[in-house]
Amino acid sequence: MKERKSIGIGLMGLGVVGGGVAKALLEKDKAIAEETGCPLILRKVLVRNLSKPRSVEVDSRLLTVDPQGILADPEINIVIEVIGGEHPALGYIKQALLNGKYVVTANKEVIAKHGSQLLEIAQERGVDILYEASVGGGIPLLLPLKQGLLANEISAIYAIINGTTNYILTRMSNEGMSFPVALKQAQELGYAEADASNDIEGIDAAYKLAILATVAFHTVVCPEDVYCQGIARLSEHDFRYAKELGYEIKLLAIAKKGDGSIEARVHPAFIPEDFLLAKVGGVYNAVQIEGDLVGKVLFYGEGAGALPTSSAIVADVIAAAKGIIQRKELGIRKWAQGGGDLFLVPRSSFPVKAIKPTSELETRYYLRMSVADRPGVLAQIAKVLGDRSISISSVIQKEADVATKTAEIVIMTHPAREQFMQQALKEMEKLPVVKEICNFIRVEG
Amino acid sequence: MKERKSIGIGLMGLGVVGGGVAKALLEKDKAIAEETGCPLILRKVLVRNLSKPRSVEVDSRLLTVDPQGILADPEINIVIEVIGGEHPALGYIKQALLNGKYVVTANKEVIAKHGSQLLEIAQERGVDILYEASVGGGIPLLLPLKQGLLANEISAIYAIINGTTNYILTRMSNEGMSFPVALKQAQELGYAEADASNDIEGIDAAYKLAILATVAFHTVVCPEDVYCQGIARLSEHDFRYAKELGYEIKLLAIAKKGDGSIEARVHPAFIPEDFLLAKVGGVYNAVQIEGDLVGKVLFYGEGAGALPTSSAIVADVIAAAKGIIQRKELGIRKWAQGGGDLFLVPRSSFPVKAIKPTSELETRYYLRMSVADRPGVLAQIAKVLGDRSISISSVIQKEADVATKTAEIVIMTHPAREQFMQQALKEMEKLPVVKEICNFIRVEG
Repeated sequence: MKERKSIGIGLMGLGVVGGGVAKALLEKDKAIAEETGCPLILRKVLVRNLSKPRSVEVDSRLLTVDPQGILADPEINIVIEVIGGEHPALGYIKQALLNGKYVVTANKEVIAKHGSQLLEIAQERGVDILYEASVGGGIPLLLPLKQGLLANEISAIYAIINGTTNYILTRMSNEGMSFPVALKQAQELGYAEADASNDIEGIDAAYKLAILATVAFHTVVCPEDVYCQGIARLSEHDFRYAKELGYEIKLLAIAKKGDGSIEARVHPAFIPEDFLLAKVGGVYNAVQIEGDLVGKVLFYGEGAGALPTSSAIVADVIAAAKGIIQRKELGIRKWAQGGGDLFLVPRSSFPVKAIKPTSELETRYYLRMSVADRPGVLAQIAKVLGDRSISISSVIQKEADVATKTAEIVIMTHPAREQFMQQALKEMEKLPVVKEICNFIRVEG
Repeated sequence: MKERKSIGIGLMGLGVVGGGVAKALLEKDKAIAEETGCPLILRKVLVRNLSKPRSVEVDSRLLTVDPQGILADPEINIVIEVIGGEHPALGYIKQALLNGKYVVTANKEVIAKHGSQLLEIAQERGVDILYEASVGGGIPLLLPLKQGLLANEISAIYAIINGTTNYILTRMSNEGMSFPVALKQAQELGYAEADASNDIEGIDAAYKLAILATVAFHTVVCPEDVYCQGIARLSEHDFRYAKELGYEIKLLAIAKKGDGSIEARVHPAFIPEDFLLAKVGGVYNAVQIEGDLVGKVLFYGEGAGALPTSSAIVADVIAAAKGIIQRKELGIRKWAQGGGDLFLVPRSSFPVKAIKPTSELETRYYLRMSVADRPGVLAQIAKVLGDRSISISSVIQKEADVATKTAEIVIMTHPAREQFMQQALKEMEKLPVVKEICNFIRVEG
């Protein structure tokens, strides 16, 4: 075996994920060295508080509160960033790349917002930034997109990529829980943070979808390109009707590539209960990818947690270590333009494609509304829809509330343009017989 | 962009899969060249009959009936083998490797039986053999095992990896069809060959499981290490009871790594109906992999067909092309020992692990038997099981056939050792009250 020096690792962050990564690196050091052909040494760990007790046994002499201790250390070749959040993580990652270090990160926010800029810096400096852990925890997703499915023209992604909301929706669906109760349970069990708004509003899923779509479609999809609607409006009623109609309700992240334009959206959706995605319960994630050759493939697993995330991070660290060794042997200092995806970096030179406006989307819709319980109401509603060429596929009208003379009507439509549906919703709201439009949910599949 | 010469491709076989590969290579030539940084040129195609009409448009001047025209051509760098079957494919692959060519193959039989030998030749000659298409069609499986899940100690694989049998079982389950009728339908629809014995007896699945287990466990698992039982004994009765008990019946390929030993088996199994694997219908495949970090991950997609298989083959061809380019730049002629998994080859130097004898397996069992319809019968059967410490978890006794004084009894057991169950089965068969042991099926999950 050819003698090689060691590769130095700097770990930034020693929280739940950081602790898992440190443990995996220390416990699996022999297997990793065998795989890379070179020992990987954890040299420094950035923490906020040196004296805080920790569950993972890391030599206290490795701990530092000074980021420069890692970013400026010439003996550190790979920086693992697991601090999370945009700042100061973005600055650390940038500086690490500028200092010629490989970066492995789980930071979906930084990658979704600044990925292409960071990739450019990495290419310029002849290094790489790897971020498999930023989407879907330990499920290999970016790797298949960048390699295994490379021969495909990817046309669509349908994903459940936020474990917190999927846990909440699963409880609501299985147990008829209300949203606030399910949220509280998720928080008590540690599946949701105290401030869960990033998850509930779909922002976390939008970051991840932006990353997936960027890699899958060879373009740049930013978080602000993703239409985003959360789950807080879903009620027990919606789940009851969904069941009755043969659907599950999931927070779906959807990206599609059409003729020269891309659509990307995160919102609750009805999906037929016999779809595999409908069966993805609890904190699990699943991503369905459609390609011209491969057809539909689906990847499923735990989307978060210390161990699954460590699985992705350590795999990226091994890939980075191999990259460093190859790079040394090749004597490359700077990337050859157009040299191909040799080191797992997506091509950043791809044209930015137009993002389809939400108004041009076409899906089917579920509408639930509270109406006056008297004859002719449905006719009025149907007319508003019909005037915009939105045709109804089915209607459910449940027993009325005699006291308030109110009935609940549920309408399923055939495919319609979002723009027309929004106009129809506004007009229906103005109808005296319509007391409230309780919810409208897009129907997929 | 650095100027590079082209890489020459020789395609051996122009059947359904070969036609798909040729089409993909020709139609996607620009995207492939952009990805590899070098044009890939289809130089020759081996066929059996030059004048046979073909659905894919390949320049007739490329066609040849002489394998040496490909194997000895110095302008061909990558040989794609899609002839299938052990001979003459094995000889062609060997010769291609010996002549310093990269090989990409979809041949599960050759890889399962001769994979480690071929990998050794490839390493010796400084080339590579890639075989993602040999398992699970276009689903990336070997790639995640070799890279994305590399940080994991893989403990178990549960897989549905034969589309033909899964199609038959899905029809039997959904429509109450008998096995012969479902098989005939599968044949008429082209999902099963006229001689479907390789599929039905589980041999095809055993080849694929041997490949998966070899890569996942870093060892060598041969087809003859895999216990193999087919689906021909399954009847409508079994499916009816499975439904009643909350199970689906699938042909499962299972591999597990225990303390120093490996078990590998293909057989019909009861799996709980709420498991994701139970929902995998029709010709689809799914592979669930369990690792110490990642937990359970599942990969799902079409396991066969020209397009999905082409997806895997073209991805491997791109990887091979990148390998050739890197290799040239590195100036490597021979593999550095222990140099890591740099070019996607599994380490062949791993210790061969002991294969657990089938007699030592432990699972739960479903037993269906035809017995005399008179008092005390169940007591006699229960005694035989109890004498071997096999405890019963539930019993179903259906209405008897009055004319023949026969009843059908179904027994579900708690986990028991295969050895004891086999002994009990033999003894029960001898009981005068037992008319027939109609089926016994292992229960997983």
